Amino acid sequence: MDVGFIGLGRMGRGMAASLIRAGHTVRVWNRSPEAAKALTGAVPVASAADAFRGDAAITMLADDAALRAVIVEGGLLDSPERPGLHLSMSTISVALAAELAAIHGRAGIPYIAAPVFGRPDVAEAGALNIVAAGEATLIDRAAPLLDAMGTKTWRFGDEPQRANAVKLAGNFMLVSAIEAMGEAAAFAEAHGVAGADLLDLLTNTLFASPVYKGYGASIAANRYEPPGFNLKLGAKDVRLALAAADAVGVPMPFASVLRDNLIDAMAHGDGDKDLAALARVASRRSGRA
Amino acid sequence: MDVGFIGLGRMGRGMAASLIRAGHTVRVWNRSPEAAKALTGAVPVASAADAFRGDAAITMLADDAALRAVIVEGGLLDSPERPGLHLSMSTISVALAAELAAIHGRAGIPYIAAPVFGRPDVAEAGALNIVAAGEATLIDRAAPLLDAMGTKTWRFGDEPQRANAVKLAGNFMLVSAIEAMGEAAAFAEAHGVAGADLLDLLTNTLFASPVYKGYGASIAANRYEPPGFNLKLGAKDVRLALAAADAVGVPMPFASVLRDNLIDAMAHGDGDKDLAALARVASRRSGRA
Amino acid sequence: MDVGFIGLGRMGRGMAASLIRAGHTVRVWNRSPEAAKALTGAVPVASAADAFRGDAAITMLADDAALRAVIVEGGLLDSPERPGLHLSMSTISVALAAELAAIHGRAGIPYIAAPVFGRPDVAEAGALNIVAAGEATLIDRAAPLLDAMGTKTWRFGDEPQRANAVKLAGNFMLVSAIEAMGEAAAFAEAHGVAGADLLDLLTNTLFASPVYKGYGASIAANRYEPPGFNLKLGAKDVRLALAAADAVGVPMPFASVLRDNLIDAMAHGDGDKDLAALARVASRRSGRA
Amino acid sequence: MDVGFIGLGRMGRGMAASLIRAGHTVRVWNRSPEAAKALTGAVPVASAADAFRGDAAITMLADDAALRAVIVEGGLLDSPERPGLHLSMSTISVALAAELAAIHGRAGIPYIAAPVFGRPDVAEAGALNIVAAGEATLIDRAAPLLDAMGTKTWRFGDEPQRANAVKLAGNFMLVSAIEAMGEAAAFAEAHGVAGADLLDLLTNTLFASPVYKGYGASIAANRYEPPGFNLKLGAKDVRLALAAADAVGVPMPFASVLRDNLIDAMAHGDGDKDLAALARVASRRSGRA
Repeated sequence: MDVGFIGLGRMGRGMAASLIRAGHTVRVWNRSPEAAKALTGAVPVASAADAFRGDAAITMLADDAALRAVIVEGGLLDSPERPGLHLSMSTISVALAAELAAIHGRAGIPYIAAPVFGRPDVAEAGALNIVAAGEATLIDRAAPLLDAMGTKTWRFGDEPQRANAVKLAGNFMLVSAIEAMGEAAAFAEAHGVAGADLLDLLTNTLFASPVYKGYGASIAANRYEPPGFNLKLGAKDVRLALAAADAVGVPMPFASVLRDNLIDAMAHGDGDKDLAALARVASRRSGRA
Repeated sequence: MDVGFIGLGRMGRGMAASLIRAGHTVRVWNRSPEAAKALTGAVPVASAADAFRGDAAITMLADDAALRAVIVEGGLLDSPERPGLHLSMSTISVALAAELAAIHGRAGIPYIAAPVFGRPDVAEAGALNIVAAGEATLIDRAAPLLDAMGTKTWRFGDEPQRANAVKLAGNFMLVSAIEAMGEAAAFAEAHGVAGADLLDLLTNTLFASPVYKGYGASIAANRYEPPGFNLKLGAKDVRLALAAADAVGVPMPFASVLRDNLIDAMAHGDGDKDLAALARVASRRSGRA
Repeated sequence: MDVGFIGLGRMGRGMAASLIRAGHTVRVWNRSPEAAKALTGAVPVASAADAFRGDAAITMLADDAALRAVIVEGGLLDSPERPGLHLSMSTISVALAAELAAIHGRAGIPYIAAPVFGRPDVAEAGALNIVAAGEATLIDRAAPLLDAMGTKTWRFGDEPQRANAVKLAGNFMLVSAIEAMGEAAAFAEAHGVAGADLLDLLTNTLFASPVYKGYGASIAANRYEPPGFNLKLGAKDVRLALAAADAVGVPMPFASVLRDNLIDAMAHGDGDKDLAALARVASRRSGRA
Repeated sequence: MDVGFIGLGRMGRGMAASLIRAGHTVRVWNRSPEAAKALTGAVPVASAADAFRGDAAITMLADDAALRAVIVEGGLLDSPERPGLHLSMSTISVALAAELAAIHGRAGIPYIAAPVFGRPDVAEAGALNIVAAGEATLIDRAAPLLDAMGTKTWRFGDEPQRANAVKLAGNFMLVSAIEAMGEAAAFAEAHGVAGADLLDLLTNTLFASPVYKGYGASIAANRYEPPGFNLKLGAKDVRLALAAADAVGVPMPFASVLRDNLIDAMAHGDGDKDLAALARVASRRSGRA
């Protein structure tokens, strides 16, 4: 397929590379053009509008502001040439997701949301878990692209923003897992048990899953650099989850604790470390870090 | 080996059966004698003292009060005949665990702590994960018993009570996982996504581990009876974790949320349901349950 | 002085009446014109621009959106005729307050922030506590107006948005007091003590202050209608406090609990009741409401 | 009246002195006898039993353990000479209070609970607020003593332990007020407003009550020594409130936050400072202390 790809951050690069490897033609655009030029096999284009056409356009931007700047304020929906489909893969607020679905509808541009789970190396390997929502026929049409980027596409019905809600719910659970490990490790250490030993046991038995093993290893080693997923981006996602929960009337006390502890972590200089550094808050508060 | 087994509750039954299957001689005692008589291949004895002798005595009782009643107030440590080793496998407070280590030391009775992870069916299958602490030579001596009851024994050094701290840390993480799933499911439902669909995705990908799959399936099905692990017992373990955290100066805000929500669950009649019913609190608070 | 007054909600009405009573000429504008016509002694004007001129213009609007709509999007700062001073008295976000200070500076319109503490009846009596920040000479110039509306003006330096931060801090403490009374009353009731008896003791001794007496009386009587200060407006202020805390890196765990409990209250239909209805959450969660 | 007084700590000393000043004969006993000898006008006695007789015996001890050691383990209830009334004024758990009521009943010793609100200087001045529960005729009989020690006796019915529940509820509200001021001050400071200025405004207006003024002044001055009420004693009372709430099924999320933050404070060396030092937690967590 002829695809435009907007946003070559750490995740976007790997996703675009997976598309190229699968034989698709990929026009790429990024705010700083170096990233576009560096991507082997890609066709760098001069403007977002040049990428926002063809069989499908994919957006993978950092946050609401970046996506809004490019799509809404950039006027892409009004350009004469339009894509056959907009595959919106960024992690964004449910509110913006709903707004985008509405304005694409008014502009007559087919639109589906498809945020992803997986770190940059998983994106590079084309092994993401993709959460898709929107008209089923559109998701079918995007299948060759989705299959190139992920191992599985999980479908969540017709309303695009539901996929974004699912993404935020997943990230909330991920950050909760880190907090739980952090508190448990601080508890263990205070009782004379090495946090690493505790986590070795638990992440190989009851909690033998990718999230626990990956973040648990960082906590066990007390090593948070280089970051895989920046703590401040995790904080952004918890904020989005809280806002979306507030909008529909759901108290989320765990998310509230996460918010406070992520602020604590950032206030102590850990915003650019790996999200696993959240675990240091429990340790520091117990007077041990 | 010639073993005495005290406490034939849902976990103890399966553990004793595993010992019998492995060829050990197992004298059993339980407060209500029916459970002892019902256990095929076991030798029911008339008193706890009759069980507290031989090569090793194993205790697997419901809580601090039950263990204290049998061992301390029952005067077992002063009886003329004593076991070669006391293998203390109950989930109890770190404080009582430390006290027991001390009084066994004074009484000259070898003592190790070895609480376990696993539900009753896992105990029955002899597939528990066993957390052992105490003198290494004692744990070595108990190996034939531990190997009969579990797939693996995880060692945590010389001080018995550290094993109990590890057990509480693990149960804290388990209850945290349930709370996180409960909040995420309530959030998803309020956004029009079935909680079951959300959990199907997450427990088969990022969180594909026994705890998430097991409790996630209950939450997805909104089915909390019959209980595998009673909510009020989970509440007891969270209380023990909080007390042990307080004793060593560790704030645990997730554990505090769990405590409040477990109280809420019990106040709404779910104390005898499965621990997964904790998930109903988030749903009820959002006005949806 | 010749004053324009924009926003005749429950608070604004009383404030404008106090100005009229003190002899000032008060041109008034409100989105729905009935309120302007009903105010004895006021001069209703046809547009916000007609009010935004003279010696001083006062704005007292419901929230960020309302103030932004009138001032920024309404283009008032670019109108040919301008007020000698803009006295911004609404409870708004610190972020919008800072933005307004900046754009007034660029437009050359003197600007001070002066949010208030007090319920509608206190506004009517001209007995508010006013929190003012901005250039001292400007606050001096506004003194005849401030003195007409309040018993005391508390000054917080040169940066206008600091007054807004103080207002949010105060409202956070107010909602915290209600939550504390709600939990204490639920605790007392569960121990057989009438919440009203508990609050009678405490609000007449240790906590004998206007906030505790006022809201405590509502809780004691379990009477939340008609509302003095709507619960959903209180929820708005807690949200603003949390956002402002996040922006400067301050964890506020009490505010987080308030947020969750206010969502719970609104999810159970109490959004339009008095803020004191927050106390019902603790009671309901204990299975007693 | 002929009174025995057991427990001459910082509070007990002032209360006994008030009784002496009112003309009562006061036999005093304290674990360390120096305090008894130092009290002008008192009659030091050699044993707790010598104090536990006469028209009334008053106990004012530090905690459950101290009261239990003297009364229950010390065997006072079985001594041949008994007091006409036991006035139990210590701040203790609701559970122990209920147990004491029961065992006094079995021993045939009239018993009322009468914990107090007020700092040591208020005790010295005979100006406490006293919370009494128990048979009305017994409280009537104790009136000359209560009136000597306090400005007002607040009655809470026939069951003595209800007075203890009220005392814990009050202390919970007191610690909540400190936490709210601490968070608000940290918030203000981060926005460039001196915490002292914020608290000056609020504790003289909305929150003009003894608790806010007293603790607010400490927080404003950032001065926590010498302690009026030790932080670790405040932590004890929050623990008692949480235990009593758990026993009757009441979630108390504010109390949970207090518990975590008090642990944080103690882990950072503030256990022996004044309870107002709880406010430092919010400041430290924001990276500013």
